[in-house]
Amino acid sequence: MQAEIIAVGTEILLGDIVNTNAQFLAQELASLGIDVYYQTVVGDNPKRLEDTLFHAFSRADLVITTGGLGPTEDDLTKETGAKYFNEKMKLDERALGRIKKYFDKTGRIMTENNVKQAYVPENAIVLYNDNGTAPGILIEKNNKIMVMLPGPPKEVIPMFTEQVKPYLSKKQEYTFISRVLRVANVGESAMEMQVKDIIHRQENPTVAPYAKGMESILRITAKAKNEEEAQELISPVAKEIYDVLGDAVYAEGETNLQTVVAKLLLEKNKTIATAESCTGGLLAASLVEYPGISKVFLDGVVTYSNESKKNRLGVKGETLEKYGAVSPQTAEEMAENVAKTAGTEIGIATTGVAGPDGGTAEKPVGLVYIGLCIGGRVMSKECRFAGSRERIRERAVYSALDWLRKELLVQP
Amino acid sequence: MQAEIIAVGTEILLGDIVNTNAQFLAQELASLGIDVYYQTVVGDNPKRLEDTLFHAFSRADLVITTGGLGPTEDDLTKETGAKYFNEKMKLDERALGRIKKYFDKTGRIMTENNVKQAYVPENAIVLYNDNGTAPGILIEKNNKIMVMLPGPPKEVIPMFTEQVKPYLSKKQEYTFISRVLRVANVGESAMEMQVKDIIHRQENPTVAPYAKGMESILRITAKAKNEEEAQELISPVAKEIYDVLGDAVYAEGETNLQTVVAKLLLEKNKTIATAESCTGGLLAASLVEYPGISKVFLDGVVTYSNESKKNRLGVKGETLEKYGAVSPQTAEEMAENVAKTAGTEIGIATTGVAGPDGGTAEKPVGLVYIGLCIGGRVMSKECRFAGSRERIRERAVYSALDWLRKELLVQP
Repeated sequence: MQAEIIAVGTEILLGDIVNTNAQFLAQELASLGIDVYYQTVVGDNPKRLEDTLFHAFSRADLVITTGGLGPTEDDLTKETGAKYFNEKMKLDERALGRIKKYFDKTGRIMTENNVKQAYVPENAIVLYNDNGTAPGILIEKNNKIMVMLPGPPKEVIPMFTEQVKPYLSKKQEYTFISRVLRVANVGESAMEMQVKDIIHRQENPTVAPYAKGMESILRITAKAKNEEEAQELISPVAKEIYDVLGDAVYAEGETNLQTVVAKLLLEKNKTIATAESCTGGLLAASLVEYPGISKVFLDGVVTYSNESKKNRLGVKGETLEKYGAVSPQTAEEMAENVAKTAGTEIGIATTGVAGPDGGTAEKPVGLVYIGLCIGGRVMSKECRFAGSRERIRERAVYSALDWLRKELLVQP
Repeated sequence: MQAEIIAVGTEILLGDIVNTNAQFLAQELASLGIDVYYQTVVGDNPKRLEDTLFHAFSRADLVITTGGLGPTEDDLTKETGAKYFNEKMKLDERALGRIKKYFDKTGRIMTENNVKQAYVPENAIVLYNDNGTAPGILIEKNNKIMVMLPGPPKEVIPMFTEQVKPYLSKKQEYTFISRVLRVANVGESAMEMQVKDIIHRQENPTVAPYAKGMESILRITAKAKNEEEAQELISPVAKEIYDVLGDAVYAEGETNLQTVVAKLLLEKNKTIATAESCTGGLLAASLVEYPGISKVFLDGVVTYSNESKKNRLGVKGETLEKYGAVSPQTAEEMAENVAKTAGTEIGIATTGVAGPDGGTAEKPVGLVYIGLCIGGRVMSKECRFAGSRERIRERAVYSALDWLRKELLVQP
């Protein structure tokens, strides 16, 4: 099957937003074995949108659009799709009900123009939207498939994954099954060197390394008649990689480091408290992302000033004066004392120079100490990060979580 | 002038990288008053690249490409451009010298295929590359302009800014100046209804509304002979919008809500502490994003459990029992007590049901109370948010910041 991706939105043509939807959809279609030869961006203009859609269908079997499903007069994707398939529009009562409910729940007033969002082409499959008001649309007719998705990535990703992907995968003769190994805190090229030989030896499955945020990913993809056959091809290759990378592989599949750590804490029933300086609440926030974490995450402090390190945590004035706020000693006292004052088994702390100012020759921007109190031991770790203030804070959180993960693995 | 942007690269079609070059170029062209009606991505395939380029020139006066200038056989942008303009290729000695020098400087060995990068169409302007090996190309012929830029953004941005932009701006009679109004916490369609009349009445300047994350944006764009004339056209329209939306417009230009709040805190020299339950550190973290915030942000707590609300903050057991952790009373006590215990002028607190579990008929998922202690007053506000746990937490932070902003505006 050949596909094209069309993003509809003047805001992309003006450069107000980056078209990350195209990347997401491109990856997903590649994983389904569907070729994408073109991606196009077109504005909210009826004639040009029509030209683009018709031109795409002259080359492709499948066209996926994002955007242009909203309530305003400019939003014309559905109408243009209906024209291509020669379909009339009708009101979908269920979609309307969901839109009304969405407005009720958010306490906002549903304006008249929102009703437009509940109109759909007559023979379409309606893709109900759990994360916004505009439903998506799928039409299959005369060997052509059109999938219309909303604009916001938060709506696009779940709608595609849950509703469109299963529909499309049924149409593919071969299945492409991937196993994704997630590697924490190792630079991509460093990891690539370690597994280079394994990567080059493979034809089916293939092994593709890439960087995603602060982690590295190895995607092992097998082309096979069915899932079972694919897994048989993948298993020995995955084993080889584990033999090389060990516990640097923190998980498989769609997850992230904070989720893995949160699950470990819950599984091992270890209570935890956080004490943050340079990360300013991000470490606590990343644990709190996980639903049900309240059983083990009890308490956190963001002791940003020296005063609050003393008052809230009882870090000794002597320690702060002698070694400074950014020091292994302060990190350790923060970790130990937050556990003590919160009554938790684990305490974890960060203190560092996030920049862009405040660095010195001795303590440059990017220097971060992580303190960890676990299983009766109190330890600290020095890290040096490069990049912006934001990046330094994110890397500090990531490194703290990864260290905690490795220590949790050896806890009873 | 009408332009199109074409990205050449299979890695974009596969979703391995996001096409950020398109965003950069779109913004730059918009600021020059050059209309961009289409952006396209095409792979390293000679036929499809040629089709795309010829099709683009059938609609546009200017085509800007990124990518496909490298040393491999797949890199065909220059050859395709030369074909369109009916130009022969020739070796550019200066480009070759620079490529050799670049390899020397980076200590790498220059392989034979790199010579290909020094071949350029005969009547082209060569855009020498200070940040990589591939030179860019500019051809103007028969009222058509083609600009070929390399792929990596760190080469594209300086090459366009220093060499292409001055060339193009000389061709433009009019300048396009925009003023961007950022509106906090109002849904796009609700805002559109409020300013609909103003939008529809405008021709020059135009007013374009759109949603970006949790905020709405109004872009007022004037076409004029110069900046001064543009601002004169924009001013009365901006005033009309302010008259309707009032302090819902939180800022103009490239910024975000947390930056505006952080700046207000610093300007008014108001110290602040945060007390968070459902937002779990995100509120503190969003303030700490701003460099230099340590002058006013002293302290925060993430009192996730009832115990920690009592121990760290001295929230009364009676309050928690009688009204529950998610209540205006608890939010107010948290805000008041965090300010008191941290010794700050302002205390701000969040408590709510972030879900997906833990909701009841009386206190459903999405119910959040914000507490604010400022200028001697202690207040709370009830919010109801829809969406995922992540979204509810983000909206809670955003609403807390927006409320704080409005209260700060009336503080001395």
